[in-house]
Amino acid sequence: MNNHEVVRLKVNFKTLEEFENFREYGQQELSMKEDLEENIVENDSESPFYGVYFGKKLAARMSLYRIDKKFDRYFDPPQDYYELWKLEVLPGYQGKGIGKELVDFAKTLGLPVKTNARQRSDDFWLKQRFEPLTYLEERDKSENPYVWFPKGVSEQKD
Amino acid sequence: MNNHEVVRLKVNFKTLEEFENFREYGQQELSMKEDLEENIVENDSESPFYGVYFGKKLAARMSLYRIDKKFDRYFDPPQDYYELWKLEVLPGYQGKGIGKELVDFAKTLGLPVKTNARQRSDDFWLKQRFEPLTYLEERDKSENPYVWFPKGVSEQKD
Repeated sequence: MNNHEVVRLKVNFKTLEEFENFREYGQQELSMKEDLEENIVENDSESPFYGVYFGKKLAARMSLYRIDKKFDRYFDPPQDYYELWKLEVLPGYQGKGIGKELVDFAKTLGLPVKTNARQRSDDFWLKQRFEPLTYLEERDKSENPYVWFPKGVSEQKD
Repeated sequence: MNNHEVVRLKVNFKTLEEFENFREYGQQELSMKEDLEENIVENDSESPFYGVYFGKKLAARMSLYRIDKKFDRYFDPPQDYYELWKLEVLPGYQGKGIGKELVDFAKTLGLPVKTNARQRSDDFWLKQRFEPLTYLEERDKSENPYVWFPKGVSEQKD
């Protein structure tokens, strides 16, 4: 494995230990751990996480999950898209463009990308050429949705 | 208006100004402001927000939105439920039980309540007798779902 490349993370105890360094650690990680302990998933099975290593240290990660077209309420024409969340670069590794590298990776997969921008991260997403959507209460609830449109894709109008 | 009671907040410029004191200010508030400025909503129309005033000062708020049964992926039997978000008590007013008061209000409405617990808020939700759900990647994505079940309601199994 080369350093500083975006790699897909495997579900194993080593990865789960690395995850504990990230602020956004929660039910998703606990559920992966349980599934591993109870042999519901195999060791080294694929996770929805992608990351960047510096040497043996996981410096950044994001979760990227393909959502089926039938649940698409964002894009026109309706289609499969990626939901991106838990994008996080560890403190010692910030300011090196690693966040951008992860987002750029997501864009190369050929589908629209949707995220829920956290507090005060709007500038970052605008720089990545994501666009804020018109807020719709019944769809967005607690979210601040930003999307990236590939060519030929636009916002879904109800 | 009595003090320290939970009241439904109206959409007007006064309320929107109060909202600027809260950390979780985003697209939802900006959208309400625009709708008001462009006369898309009337002054003093109902908002999905509830709050607690201390004198004339809005000390706490939450957003509470009724979700239609057809979108229910949490409860058995499937039914309308309330999504609760942006629960926040301003710093000077914390430790007085106001957060609990708002949550208790939501429980009196006769429907299940679902929230997405933020980082390190699990203890609070457990104390309010909310329960964490089994994490399901395709449903929960970035969320850490906690729900409150009224009598006779249980978790939806796929």
